Amino acid sequence: MNFASDNTAGIAPGIMDAIVRANQGFALGYGNDALTRSVESRIGEVFECDAAVFLVPTGTTANALSLAQVTPPWGGVLCHAQAHIMTSECGAPEFFGGGLKLIGLSGEDCKLTPDTVERAIARYSGHVPHQVNAAALSITQATEAGTTYRVEEIAALSDVAHAHGLAVHMDGARFGNALARMNVTAAEATWKAGVDVLSFGATKGGAMAAEAVVVFDRKRAAHMAERRKRSGHLFSKHRFLAAQFEGYLNDGYWLALARHANAMADRLSEGLRSCGVSIVWPVEANIVFALLPQTLDAKLKSAGAAYYVRPNTQAGDDVKIGPDQMLVRLVTSFATVDAEVDRFVALVRAG
Amino acid sequence: MNFASDNTAGIAPGIMDAIVRANQGFALGYGNDALTRSVESRIGEVFECDAAVFLVPTGTTANALSLAQVTPPWGGVLCHAQAHIMTSECGAPEFFGGGLKLIGLSGEDCKLTPDTVERAIARYSGHVPHQVNAAALSITQATEAGTTYRVEEIAALSDVAHAHGLAVHMDGARFGNALARMNVTAAEATWKAGVDVLSFGATKGGAMAAEAVVVFDRKRAAHMAERRKRSGHLFSKHRFLAAQFEGYLNDGYWLALARHANAMADRLSEGLRSCGVSIVWPVEANIVFALLPQTLDAKLKSAGAAYYVRPNTQAGDDVKIGPDQMLVRLVTSFATVDAEVDRFVALVRAG
Amino acid sequence: MNFASDNTAGIAPGIMDAIVRANQGFALGYGNDALTRSVESRIGEVFECDAAVFLVPTGTTANALSLAQVTPPWGGVLCHAQAHIMTSECGAPEFFGGGLKLIGLSGEDCKLTPDTVERAIARYSGHVPHQVNAAALSITQATEAGTTYRVEEIAALSDVAHAHGLAVHMDGARFGNALARMNVTAAEATWKAGVDVLSFGATKGGAMAAEAVVVFDRKRAAHMAERRKRSGHLFSKHRFLAAQFEGYLNDGYWLALARHANAMADRLSEGLRSCGVSIVWPVEANIVFALLPQTLDAKLKSAGAAYYVRPNTQAGDDVKIGPDQMLVRLVTSFATVDAEVDRFVALVRAG
Amino acid sequence: MNFASDNTAGIAPGIMDAIVRANQGFALGYGNDALTRSVESRIGEVFECDAAVFLVPTGTTANALSLAQVTPPWGGVLCHAQAHIMTSECGAPEFFGGGLKLIGLSGEDCKLTPDTVERAIARYSGHVPHQVNAAALSITQATEAGTTYRVEEIAALSDVAHAHGLAVHMDGARFGNALARMNVTAAEATWKAGVDVLSFGATKGGAMAAEAVVVFDRKRAAHMAERRKRSGHLFSKHRFLAAQFEGYLNDGYWLALARHANAMADRLSEGLRSCGVSIVWPVEANIVFALLPQTLDAKLKSAGAAYYVRPNTQAGDDVKIGPDQMLVRLVTSFATVDAEVDRFVALVRAG
Repeated sequence: MNFASDNTAGIAPGIMDAIVRANQGFALGYGNDALTRSVESRIGEVFECDAAVFLVPTGTTANALSLAQVTPPWGGVLCHAQAHIMTSECGAPEFFGGGLKLIGLSGEDCKLTPDTVERAIARYSGHVPHQVNAAALSITQATEAGTTYRVEEIAALSDVAHAHGLAVHMDGARFGNALARMNVTAAEATWKAGVDVLSFGATKGGAMAAEAVVVFDRKRAAHMAERRKRSGHLFSKHRFLAAQFEGYLNDGYWLALARHANAMADRLSEGLRSCGVSIVWPVEANIVFALLPQTLDAKLKSAGAAYYVRPNTQAGDDVKIGPDQMLVRLVTSFATVDAEVDRFVALVRAG
Repeated sequence: MNFASDNTAGIAPGIMDAIVRANQGFALGYGNDALTRSVESRIGEVFECDAAVFLVPTGTTANALSLAQVTPPWGGVLCHAQAHIMTSECGAPEFFGGGLKLIGLSGEDCKLTPDTVERAIARYSGHVPHQVNAAALSITQATEAGTTYRVEEIAALSDVAHAHGLAVHMDGARFGNALARMNVTAAEATWKAGVDVLSFGATKGGAMAAEAVVVFDRKRAAHMAERRKRSGHLFSKHRFLAAQFEGYLNDGYWLALARHANAMADRLSEGLRSCGVSIVWPVEANIVFALLPQTLDAKLKSAGAAYYVRPNTQAGDDVKIGPDQMLVRLVTSFATVDAEVDRFVALVRAG
Repeated sequence: MNFASDNTAGIAPGIMDAIVRANQGFALGYGNDALTRSVESRIGEVFECDAAVFLVPTGTTANALSLAQVTPPWGGVLCHAQAHIMTSECGAPEFFGGGLKLIGLSGEDCKLTPDTVERAIARYSGHVPHQVNAAALSITQATEAGTTYRVEEIAALSDVAHAHGLAVHMDGARFGNALARMNVTAAEATWKAGVDVLSFGATKGGAMAAEAVVVFDRKRAAHMAERRKRSGHLFSKHRFLAAQFEGYLNDGYWLALARHANAMADRLSEGLRSCGVSIVWPVEANIVFALLPQTLDAKLKSAGAAYYVRPNTQAGDDVKIGPDQMLVRLVTSFATVDAEVDRFVALVRAG
Repeated sequence: MNFASDNTAGIAPGIMDAIVRANQGFALGYGNDALTRSVESRIGEVFECDAAVFLVPTGTTANALSLAQVTPPWGGVLCHAQAHIMTSECGAPEFFGGGLKLIGLSGEDCKLTPDTVERAIARYSGHVPHQVNAAALSITQATEAGTTYRVEEIAALSDVAHAHGLAVHMDGARFGNALARMNVTAAEATWKAGVDVLSFGATKGGAMAAEAVVVFDRKRAAHMAERRKRSGHLFSKHRFLAAQFEGYLNDGYWLALARHANAMADRLSEGLRSCGVSIVWPVEANIVFALLPQTLDAKLKSAGAAYYVRPNTQAGDDVKIGPDQMLVRLVTSFATVDAEVDRFVALVRAG
């Protein structure tokens, strides 16, 4: 019953196999090997685009490199106030970006609306050189609340951003989970809807530690190689980063893994709802936020359940937590199984 | 009728005299001259404290150096959302501070309350190393709205900050204007109320370009000299920075200049109120925010009035600007004269 | 015949096994798992010291984090002009260190002497705040030339550094190779000889991507966790970094791997010498620098040999490359086999 | 007898007059005033070029802003090992430039030659993304040794730099002193000889604190305004920076001041030579390096002479200081007078 995070799961078998497979003979280091070339090209195929691809080990890195690339040190990045880049990366975007400024905006379900972004751009434009001007928009797909943006929502946000010269970044740490819910292609969900740079996550989806910065227009990727190296993220035995993506993307494996995780979240949220538990945000990926009675906490944990209770101070403005309630985040993954979900629900039902 | 800013005024005569006086003979560079030593010591006397003093030319610099000194790159600075460091310094604190994060809080009259700060500290504490933790509190005195903190308000804020290990910085670009309104000493208004580092401004008060970073506990000033040098702010002919403070502080000149500016703001706000104009925030320093009919704008400007209209998008949440109104910021200075104030009021009255 | 680098080899079997073994069930992320705790403790045992340990994926990161930790932005790091941090990390130490300065010194065999360091400290001390002052000494073990420092040499360098308040960093990307040549313990080769912080490499030794920053005095490790996170190097599935070190350190595996690599270098250098080839620097680890006839280049490469030719411009001052010669770097690893070494030598012998 | 530095002099009368003159009435802040516009335009005239001009208070700032503008954080700046940016700015270029690397080269008389630069470019090119690549060349005019580059020397250096894509920066803290020695125009001495960005100093020449970053091709000046603001160097009462340049440039005043300082250096060096004192470098500006008997030090100082003795460790490789000698730097300025020079020489002559 481990719902603490999708990163408490290990490596999905198909990805581990790819790592083992890659461990044959010698290969040039630093990304100059055949497997890396092949995987970079494969990612381009997945997105139907001659994109520039940079593999790195963590999502924080993918986000920070992406944002530093499209935002000058004197620029601002518009994002949701609850975005991972804002709350959970210890200032990595600011560090990589030479002191750029993240500007947190509010929005229901952890999502931004074109209106909010439009107003923020109006607020953070002009008054140069005194005011930091908005230079990029960053959205998370799926969001930190487990909700997703529809293609048309992404397009509408991108339109606003582009109309004012902002670049559009997508934090896709759970891009697979989001895409598996959508009836569109990876291309339609990203650059065709206006996304300029994607942090394409594989770690939460089942890899060991592998993310790709995907710059859809190669011209925007100049000197990203230096940024990656200089931040310590160019692997010498790079083939093993590539291998993870090879396994992840092989024959739709990534979407199969994501569909499973999503199905587990559905099963969990439906089970909890059937016990009368309030589910806070729409379950559109692999995350369930539920309001559970505080009294259950000890019981669930002693039964072996793992999850995080979100402190009231960090719950966001659109959640009302009752005095005897706790806001619990439950995350499923490729490794979650029916039986554990059902056991958790049964424990809640028993009260 | 120049009310655009207190920095549209020139150099106050007593300060210009001091500059001319300092221009005699040779003096060691980089602050190793007798006048600098004397002025550093004089500032200590003004604050009744053996403080470490660093002269710099701009307020942005004083703030950025101060904040970088008391906040690590992975730390956060709590400040009002309308604070100058947040809105008008192009990310200088982030630059000097290696990518630190400013955290904007709301509060009426551009002031923070202990409750707000307490909640923000709760929000930005813990979850290390993922979350940027609050490391400093910065308050502006007088505020960007022209209001001031009372000594007991400063003490209450400092108590909250110190209880959680935060340092307290005061942006005193208009410290003289604030102090001139208070019936307390400079010491009581700062370190005795818990302020750890002060940006002590002279420029807006009448100097050419001179501010002092005042670190009340010398032990907190380690390596500030390197920070100042490295950011290009150690003047070679340092005596002329010192001379400005000599003139400014001589025989209470700074408070006399501030009292005049404040009196002009009072005269202006009272005159406008007598015309039925709504004054937005309490006039407690040398700044008046007034809601004027938009129709007056052209007339006032053609008559030679200078002021800034604050865009609706940047007015802050606690101001309601009517559809035919404009929010105007009017700043007085040592150089403002009765006649110009009266002329401006008469123009408004005439409608 | 792949002698391009020790990072062209894959993952040593004992390490791959440990990765596979770690892929069981769920584990808390971000280093809060049992395996990480155990491995951190194990590293402490290896060094007979209650050290603070931070696992990261690359050597560049380990170096940059280490140097940023012990050097302020206005400080300098003394190192050999040919050090990896100086020539091959794209400015990572400068980036992580907020603009610190690397100061390259010369020295035979890619090694520094106490005299050189003493003179450099004299040169880069004082004149504050104008001059960047030396704050740390960084030495590489084994060096970029494949030579090693003896324990007494390290101690003599550390003594000079410590006498002037400098911290001592060791870039141990090939620490195993060096230690395997020395008749001392890991503790004697590091902190007992005065090393304060070690970049303890496993990648070149046989891991996939794993290095440890070892801070021997825990008090010097404050906020390293934030530095690591903020630079994107805190793995969510951290157990797989730990697993690599588990396998590496298990039952002396790391030294066995290193001894093999070293033996292959000996075999190679002896073989080449027996053909009359000049070996440039003493072969004290797993690197051989040889002066080969340029005419051999095409032949060796068409036979499948891989190695790097060092450009004359980067050869260093103490190497004389004849007009028909090329300076070749040949690196062996755990994966090098006798037959390939012998084949290479035979090709050279055949001329 | 103050020869400690040209910054121990005060403000030249014509510049002080301009400051006083500018102190009339109100003026818009932050460079939006008429005097600033006029002076920016005047500087363009002096250089016969529609340059982008940014006034700042210190030479360190002018250099650091210039270098950050033309060098990416992963780039290198070639400069003389004795250059001010290398030895005396506490890492300001590294700070402003996000961790760029200064690469110190040797050269007689503190000057670089095309050969040296060509070799350095060869050394610091390629091997991307591992190696910091040379991105700019910075030369000092007049040099730190008091020597000057001829126009054809500058052109030759620029040709080499440009041929490899490097930008050319000139640190002109003593540009006036150099130009006054040359029979060419300001344009010929800078952009016509290939200089892309000039730190045009006035402070050492007689101003209080005023330097101009002159970007000869406006297209290279994008976002310099934000850089200046963000580093705290945009003066609110900007007219007083402008006034200093107005006075400095008015009617050739700057060259007259420089010629005087140069003449004093000539008188001093000739006087010393006539006493048998060895002058180390050609006296081509306003700096004299002399080898004096150590025994004279106490006598000269007790007579009131001020100068710096350069420590042996920092003298550079091309100077041989005898065991009883000291290397003394003597700097003259607009404020130096014949009598003081003669008195100093007489003291030396008396022995």
